[in-house]
Amino acid sequence: MGNSFGNLFRITTFGESHGAAIGVIIDGCPAGLEVDEAFIQFELDRRKPGQSKITTQRKEDDTFKILSGVFEGKSTGAPIAIVIDNQDQRSKDYSHIAESFRPSHADYTYQMKYGTRDYRGGGRSSARETAARVAAGAIAKLLLKKYGIHINAFVSQVGEIKAPDYKVLDLTKTEDTIVRCPDSATAEKMIALIDKVRLGRDTIGGIVTGVIKNSPVGLGEPVFNKLHATLGHAMLGINAVKGFEYGSGFEGVKQLGSQHNDEFYNDGEKIRTRTNYSGGVQGGISNGEDIYFKVAFKPVATIMQDQLSVDKAGKEVTLAGKGRHDPCVVPRAVPIVEAMAALVMVDFLLLSKSSKV
Amino acid sequence: MGNSFGNLFRITTFGESHGAAIGVIIDGCPAGLEVDEAFIQFELDRRKPGQSKITTQRKEDDTFKILSGVFEGKSTGAPIAIVIDNQDQRSKDYSHIAESFRPSHADYTYQMKYGTRDYRGGGRSSARETAARVAAGAIAKLLLKKYGIHINAFVSQVGEIKAPDYKVLDLTKTEDTIVRCPDSATAEKMIALIDKVRLGRDTIGGIVTGVIKNSPVGLGEPVFNKLHATLGHAMLGINAVKGFEYGSGFEGVKQLGSQHNDEFYNDGEKIRTRTNYSGGVQGGISNGEDIYFKVAFKPVATIMQDQLSVDKAGKEVTLAGKGRHDPCVVPRAVPIVEAMAALVMVDFLLLSKSSKV
Amino acid sequence: MGNSFGNLFRITTFGESHGAAIGVIIDGCPAGLEVDEAFIQFELDRRKPGQSKITTQRKEDDTFKILSGVFEGKSTGAPIAIVIDNQDQRSKDYSHIAESFRPSHADYTYQMKYGTRDYRGGGRSSARETAARVAAGAIAKLLLKKYGIHINAFVSQVGEIKAPDYKVLDLTKTEDTIVRCPDSATAEKMIALIDKVRLGRDTIGGIVTGVIKNSPVGLGEPVFNKLHATLGHAMLGINAVKGFEYGSGFEGVKQLGSQHNDEFYNDGEKIRTRTNYSGGVQGGISNGEDIYFKVAFKPVATIMQDQLSVDKAGKEVTLAGKGRHDPCVVPRAVPIVEAMAALVMVDFLLLSKSSKV
Amino acid sequence: MGNSFGNLFRITTFGESHGAAIGVIIDGCPAGLEVDEAFIQFELDRRKPGQSKITTQRKEDDTFKILSGVFEGKSTGAPIAIVIDNQDQRSKDYSHIAESFRPSHADYTYQMKYGTRDYRGGGRSSARETAARVAAGAIAKLLLKKYGIHINAFVSQVGEIKAPDYKVLDLTKTEDTIVRCPDSATAEKMIALIDKVRLGRDTIGGIVTGVIKNSPVGLGEPVFNKLHATLGHAMLGINAVKGFEYGSGFEGVKQLGSQHNDEFYNDGEKIRTRTNYSGGVQGGISNGEDIYFKVAFKPVATIMQDQLSVDKAGKEVTLAGKGRHDPCVVPRAVPIVEAMAALVMVDFLLLSKSSKV
Repeated sequence: MGNSFGNLFRITTFGESHGAAIGVIIDGCPAGLEVDEAFIQFELDRRKPGQSKITTQRKEDDTFKILSGVFEGKSTGAPIAIVIDNQDQRSKDYSHIAESFRPSHADYTYQMKYGTRDYRGGGRSSARETAARVAAGAIAKLLLKKYGIHINAFVSQVGEIKAPDYKVLDLTKTEDTIVRCPDSATAEKMIALIDKVRLGRDTIGGIVTGVIKNSPVGLGEPVFNKLHATLGHAMLGINAVKGFEYGSGFEGVKQLGSQHNDEFYNDGEKIRTRTNYSGGVQGGISNGEDIYFKVAFKPVATIMQDQLSVDKAGKEVTLAGKGRHDPCVVPRAVPIVEAMAALVMVDFLLLSKSSKV
Repeated sequence: MGNSFGNLFRITTFGESHGAAIGVIIDGCPAGLEVDEAFIQFELDRRKPGQSKITTQRKEDDTFKILSGVFEGKSTGAPIAIVIDNQDQRSKDYSHIAESFRPSHADYTYQMKYGTRDYRGGGRSSARETAARVAAGAIAKLLLKKYGIHINAFVSQVGEIKAPDYKVLDLTKTEDTIVRCPDSATAEKMIALIDKVRLGRDTIGGIVTGVIKNSPVGLGEPVFNKLHATLGHAMLGINAVKGFEYGSGFEGVKQLGSQHNDEFYNDGEKIRTRTNYSGGVQGGISNGEDIYFKVAFKPVATIMQDQLSVDKAGKEVTLAGKGRHDPCVVPRAVPIVEAMAALVMVDFLLLSKSSKV
Repeated sequence: MGNSFGNLFRITTFGESHGAAIGVIIDGCPAGLEVDEAFIQFELDRRKPGQSKITTQRKEDDTFKILSGVFEGKSTGAPIAIVIDNQDQRSKDYSHIAESFRPSHADYTYQMKYGTRDYRGGGRSSARETAARVAAGAIAKLLLKKYGIHINAFVSQVGEIKAPDYKVLDLTKTEDTIVRCPDSATAEKMIALIDKVRLGRDTIGGIVTGVIKNSPVGLGEPVFNKLHATLGHAMLGINAVKGFEYGSGFEGVKQLGSQHNDEFYNDGEKIRTRTNYSGGVQGGISNGEDIYFKVAFKPVATIMQDQLSVDKAGKEVTLAGKGRHDPCVVPRAVPIVEAMAALVMVDFLLLSKSSKV
Repeated sequence: MGNSFGNLFRITTFGESHGAAIGVIIDGCPAGLEVDEAFIQFELDRRKPGQSKITTQRKEDDTFKILSGVFEGKSTGAPIAIVIDNQDQRSKDYSHIAESFRPSHADYTYQMKYGTRDYRGGGRSSARETAARVAAGAIAKLLLKKYGIHINAFVSQVGEIKAPDYKVLDLTKTEDTIVRCPDSATAEKMIALIDKVRLGRDTIGGIVTGVIKNSPVGLGEPVFNKLHATLGHAMLGINAVKGFEYGSGFEGVKQLGSQHNDEFYNDGEKIRTRTNYSGGVQGGISNGEDIYFKVAFKPVATIMQDQLSVDKAGKEVTLAGKGRHDPCVVPRAVPIVEAMAALVMVDFLLLSKSSKV
């Protein structure tokens, strides 16, 4: 019940970290879209492990195969199934995870909810599942491009180190640094911090900021499926996310209405707002200004240190830290945030075709 | 498409601020629940305007009528329809709103999305709609009580004034102050601030904290409908909300994994965690600890001051502030946050019946 | 969960036969539609009891009130709530129904499923609920008219008496006879039969044929939501329906493929088929030909005769036939069949806007 | 949007006839179910082509692979993805189909709806897609077995040749004949007829009867998702189906209420009905009696004869009959009918867990 997302452009993902494969079915992609496979691979490569010294050194290739829904390079309106085979299926010794619950992982809750779990590499709860979202999101982006809508995300905070506001940044430079922060000075500090944390066998959290430019006015469905509510749902569904805010966000609570209100004006071509505390969304519907939001990621739960926990029998155990994991998740989370944002926008775009007679 | 919420316990609301009535249909309430009408009224009264000097002085009675689905005091399994007649339907002069767009309201976006709008009192975008949610949420709470699950919310911040952490507060005292902050010293400061802002013909934002106690382990549906993602969706769909976080939230990004991880232990009766940065949710599924979260509300957009804006023809206009509105929305938002949290929990509770063979 | 129908144009009905009111919320009606209230009333009047000597003599007025979603005569995009108050709420003696199960009614199954039931007049299982569908269907028809799509239904069979094929009938004459059969000679026989059955304190079944003219090519969503599958779902959800067929239907099984295949030709303006055994639907998608189908209704279960049954304690009882009921349901079922067909077509029409890039 | 079926036990299928693979994701299978792979293969083998002289001689192996959701032989609660590779992907000459529309196929409607189509072997509209349903249905059957619910289907009519009523048949003998009719005398006649039709390079229709035994009382969701309405939806979504009826069906319209009503009695253990014109469903909810229904299949549209048609340019063409196709679809449709019935029953079974407090 929880493995699908979207209404008209609807994805359903499947797969466990160390099962045979992961993948996604997209149901509702309009026919006639050119499916640029190189672009899908480019997006997957942005997410894959082993990209740089500040991500996990685990190697996964993440090559995909389209099984259906594309014919002669174009979508046919039939469901698009994409499969990414898992390469890392070799039988390791998982006995420590099989019997015990890693702190702040999903081991305990899955075990209790389902009475069983695929413990290999976290099974279904592994962030490996997000590769399927990135593949689907790439197709969503291709569709959005036809409408001129651009989705950007970047790392705006690692630990206490913050990048300047997105408005003063050149978002085309996001890919220029391995930490995916477009401000090179900040990026250097972030990289140094992550490296330090990694050497301390620890992990650290961070924030990804998303910016959607050139959205048409009118996307979002009041009252429950407001644009920002659905974006929030999408972002909070990404592994390790602890918070979501858009526009003025949590800082906005400190403001007076007279400061916070975004005055309308006519720029000669269209109606705009002078400020954008609204974050491009008013009453749950896009108003044509930049849609921007922040997504908070906790420090990765897997650390290279001994931790106390309990096993399935309720007995206290010490878990040793092992494996290869990211010291900080946000650099690789950037394409995931973009993918989820693209899926939200495409869905509302299709829904908006029925707003008026 | 956007006026329903929930899967198995599913509500659909209707109604505009100054139309004939607002209301809700609940589809999926299990049969046999005693529907305590006094409790529903109690909850509605917590949300209604005119409660105290720090809320709007507008008077609305918000008496409800159950049209279906309840027989001899108990739910029958048929849809429960609840209607609240609008009393304030007298024809006022709305010409200023009809032709112009109030800053940071939904006037402009509704007009553009739908090509028309019911401008009277904000129409569908008015927070009056939330009364319907509170009525439905009251029924959800009655069902949750049978399982021992308690939903609490309170005002934890107004402007810069913050209440202590929820763990040191007595949440049974929330209703003791008109601002709905259980810490009386903080409450006094909050009330003074709101009063000052009101006299300045302005408004101010705030934060509502929600706490769910005694949740069973196993609620929430990975991967997209994680418990916190659906809670976030629910909260972000409330009028004026700008952000949502749970557990360690945005502060958590600054921590190291070794600090942030919640160590498991066995308390003799069940498996627990020593800390609760996870906010009661791991891998999107409740782990039995307190579920807590924060919801950020912007300052109310209606202020008693002149503001520049544009009209439908694109001409610049000055809008005069008038009407009776809340200087701060959070005291009345408390029952709305509780209602939405209850709706989320009930739905996951029913869904969890199918988790295992 | 079962009280909603449709995806983009989605209705949710509520109400019991003898509760305070019945009604419907339409979510997803595009904004800007002129809502002709006289037409809605006209449609409700076609369904209401007491129309003629061959329907129940029970009098119900079925006047409706629109509570939301319509402003200055037009839909606003907000949910349209329609309520029809029940007039017949006086407390009768229902003890015979309360404790016992009427044969071939829903008394027993509701009692077992829900552990309780509103037994007054059948409660939620009463066909009175279909008035809500007719009101919603009227709005769907208004929208379809903008696209030139026409929905017609008529009584094609009562007991063994059959009308000629729809192609040789003038469907504008359906309302000319009280049995709603456009062929006056057949209509007379049907009326005589129903009258005879009524005098025998019995009931009889019949068939309603539906015809949708001028459908655009391309409506229907393969593979599970084929146009005819969704039509079938809609029709089988009407009270007392036992079967659905479209195009050649059950007779088609006897044919050879060489007889049954509909040859394509070009009529100069568009591609058409010479025959129409397909019933206007191929591969689940409309092909532009007439969509026609048959809906079988069983004889009404309430008869004016003593019947053996059991009570809630499992004891055998004799139930006396009483009340005022239709001797044959099909004349009043005609507008219900049309309403459900209209709801299906509107939904697919809106969905089809996303078929292609 | 149309490639998913079910609510709590929800399947989404993908794949085209001659694409890389077909498959299905099952979302919502409760954890802890033993997934008997041999049984899934057994069911797929009942559907596969090339089984006997009266089915197509095309050979497809239909071996499947489970990619996710099963661990150590049991379902984990995660989505179960099943893939069946297509073996018949060799590039044939499809130019005749690519440019022209085969009569009574989906070629024309797909082309018009989507502006393109995968014409190889019918693409998405091919009945090959039903193999994915059979695989998912096998898992549904495994779950139903735990509740003692049995799903049976058999061929009850081919052309004009009819089997006796199901009540006098031994349904365990269905697999004993290649036509899947448990009455051997009737089966022989059916086989002879199909063989004759095949030699005449033609095709013939037929009827599959479904029987669900030992259903608990209380399955089905009024008012729109009545048990029989959802069964009808499921059956009408199978390729080539033209009609659905349950219980007395179309014949029931000729009866009087006094004949048709099913009298209740107490058999000492439970409440039963003496007759079963209701087909095991009253008010849309199962009453514990046998649920039985009929599904009408048209003659297969592919015939080995020349047919007139038009091409994409609107020019008239003659299409030659070629390829290897079934002369009658019903023998291979039996497992498909069972699969869809099982999917419906499992979904209602899970939904019924929330009927009562």
